[in-house]
Amino acid sequence: MATLGFVEYEDASPEVRAVFDDIMTTRKVDRVNNFWKAIAHDPATLKRTWESIKQIMAPGALDPLTKELIYVAVSVTNNCGYCIASHTAAARGRGMTDQMFKELQAVIGMANETNKMVTGYQVEIDEQFKTR
Amino acid sequence: MATLGFVEYEDASPEVRAVFDDIMTTRKVDRVNNFWKAIAHDPATLKRTWESIKQIMAPGALDPLTKELIYVAVSVTNNCGYCIASHTAAARGRGMTDQMFKELQAVIGMANETNKMVTGYQVEIDEQFKTR
Amino acid sequence: MATLGFVEYEDASPEVRAVFDDIMTTRKVDRVNNFWKAIAHDPATLKRTWESIKQIMAPGALDPLTKELIYVAVSVTNNCGYCIASHTAAARGRGMTDQMFKELQAVIGMANETNKMVTGYQVEIDEQFKTR
Amino acid sequence: MATLGFVEYEDASPEVRAVFDDIMTTRKVDRVNNFWKAIAHDPATLKRTWESIKQIMAPGALDPLTKELIYVAVSVTNNCGYCIASHTAAARGRGMTDQMFKELQAVIGMANETNKMVTGYQVEIDEQFKTR
Amino acid sequence: MATLGFVEYEDASPEVRAVFDDIMTTRKVDRVNNFWKAIAHDPATLKRTWESIKQIMAPGALDPLTKELIYVAVSVTNNCGYCIASHTAAARGRGMTDQMFKELQAVIGMANETNKMVTGYQVEIDEQFKTR
Amino acid sequence: MATLGFVEYEDASPEVRAVFDDIMTTRKVDRVNNFWKAIAHDPATLKRTWESIKQIMAPGALDPLTKELIYVAVSVTNNCGYCIASHTAAARGRGMTDQMFKELQAVIGMANETNKMVTGYQVEIDEQFKTR
Repeated sequence: MATLGFVEYEDASPEVRAVFDDIMTTRKVDRVNNFWKAIAHDPATLKRTWESIKQIMAPGALDPLTKELIYVAVSVTNNCGYCIASHTAAARGRGMTDQMFKELQAVIGMANETNKMVTGYQVEIDEQFKTR
Repeated sequence: MATLGFVEYEDASPEVRAVFDDIMTTRKVDRVNNFWKAIAHDPATLKRTWESIKQIMAPGALDPLTKELIYVAVSVTNNCGYCIASHTAAARGRGMTDQMFKELQAVIGMANETNKMVTGYQVEIDEQFKTR
Repeated sequence: MATLGFVEYEDASPEVRAVFDDIMTTRKVDRVNNFWKAIAHDPATLKRTWESIKQIMAPGALDPLTKELIYVAVSVTNNCGYCIASHTAAARGRGMTDQMFKELQAVIGMANETNKMVTGYQVEIDEQFKTR
Repeated sequence: MATLGFVEYEDASPEVRAVFDDIMTTRKVDRVNNFWKAIAHDPATLKRTWESIKQIMAPGALDPLTKELIYVAVSVTNNCGYCIASHTAAARGRGMTDQMFKELQAVIGMANETNKMVTGYQVEIDEQFKTR
Repeated sequence: MATLGFVEYEDASPEVRAVFDDIMTTRKVDRVNNFWKAIAHDPATLKRTWESIKQIMAPGALDPLTKELIYVAVSVTNNCGYCIASHTAAARGRGMTDQMFKELQAVIGMANETNKMVTGYQVEIDEQFKTR
Repeated sequence: MATLGFVEYEDASPEVRAVFDDIMTTRKVDRVNNFWKAIAHDPATLKRTWESIKQIMAPGALDPLTKELIYVAVSVTNNCGYCIASHTAAARGRGMTDQMFKELQAVIGMANETNKMVTGYQVEIDEQFKTR
């Protein structure tokens, strides 16, 4: 289940419920994912994490779908099963089509390959790419 | 420099030159990056890698800028200095603004954080996220 | 189960039994974990690994609980499910409270986030942090 | 230097200065590290990151030194050069002795080794370690 | 199962069947692994990936068994459960004995340990190891 | 240089010198690498690490060159610059030709790519690959 188990809405403190309510309202869903129920044992972390995500994933110069694609790319590279499952679903919810999914995975795979080829060949950074 | 050094255009075989030419034509640049010059010692790998990248990074259901952002996300997660430098430059070349860059980094950072929180709390995948 | 299966105590060679006995005596437990039973197919590796762990995890300038917390931090960052499960249990056995667990996870999550922000922004090391 | 360069105190907006001031006051130092100057181009991220770190790294059930040791363990496992340099210095500032440093590195090394042995031998989690 | 499910031979397009046939012929097996059935939803990726693997894993200066051992080493370091399971089986199919498996795992474990010790001690590269 | 600096032979204790001597004798070289000089501040770790490596890297069912190739594969996947530089040199010393190096890098790159594709497509392990 999870190391400390889940905090269910019915058993939650008002502080935790307020965060759960905001998650459900913001995301227009009627339940919160296991992740939130697992970390709710630490209300300060729950609040901080949710507020950070809410701020970061909001529409900005990058649209929410693009942000979810990036989230999936990180999760795949980190090999986080839970995160891949939940953010793939979230990306679909934001409009990711099957074709987008396939292209996303192709880019992730290729990037992981060339990342290691660059490293393995010990390639020095080109002058024009250096920050100064 | 690089483990085997660089293959410069002047010294390249016709086979390698053909790839270098295609890279420069496709990308509308007048030189190839160190990465290509480093792996050109292995012409089959050079050709295969370039053709794969050319196919994968072409416009599709995802536009080239989005693909570059994903490339950067993988490279940062893998901590590949060369790749971060070159793909950050490539993303800028495709229209990434400073604001987009900042949002990209914020998402990458957050994703890496929650990836580990999920893992550390040993959170089980929600039923509705499971593939079947 | 495990690639080569498990070596159970009853079937073990004297050499393997001696290590199993030392593990149980040192840790004051009456069975050895699957990890030890899995690598016992390679007695030299079993002995070397156990003796290294015994030496490294013994009380020193860092107490055993702190060492287990560090072990968990590495295991989470590496996304090793088995290791997270077993070392979280070991840390509890050494006195980790729920509150400590929560703070541990918060630090791990934050460290993973800022590690990637530093990398993504390509931040140069401050002069005063450099080794010389 | 850094992708977007550094925001120096003299050139900073009041919003950024307020964070820089709080960092210097909280840590009792008279300058901020490059990391903060690099991300200050994104004031919302600067503020959020600093407030999160301030909350997480404060004394709690785990003391500040232990938290820094955990930070180093994550940074080494992630191979983040900047982070290793800065958090090793921070840990020293909080009382890490040379002996503690050596034991820390030994545990990190061992944990990384056994993480991979467990994975490579495909060891199944012991029943008693499973969450339920 | 897999995000998009599997493409079974009976339901596959001629393009996908051609790749499946080539996999089965080349490997002298009568079915394709789940990996290929999962990515077959993207025929271009299926073809590109198979042709790359076929080229790379063919006998060369390194024999096929050595290549499989390297594949396992990467997969363990990346903690990819599927890949460890399938490439351990493939390595056995190419002649990996139990003794080779044990030595392989010992090297992988040790390499992961010293990789982190080098990093944690911030060791500078010896002059004679630098590329120039 | 390194966090604690280097222990040079002339300044080393008899205990450390004995290990340094054994390294030089075993490897038929007249100096020890920076790695050993960096960890020599912790004589117990120096001794344990050297003895483990000596045991693991000795000829066995796998020959020393194959073991070095595996070491490089892990180091590249972990993105450890020092380790890539030193073990690439060690592999050459054991007979790795340029052609072997290129094939090694191609396999490492491909393995990293497919590791992530498997993960991203959430592919379930085939029945016949499962341990039981």
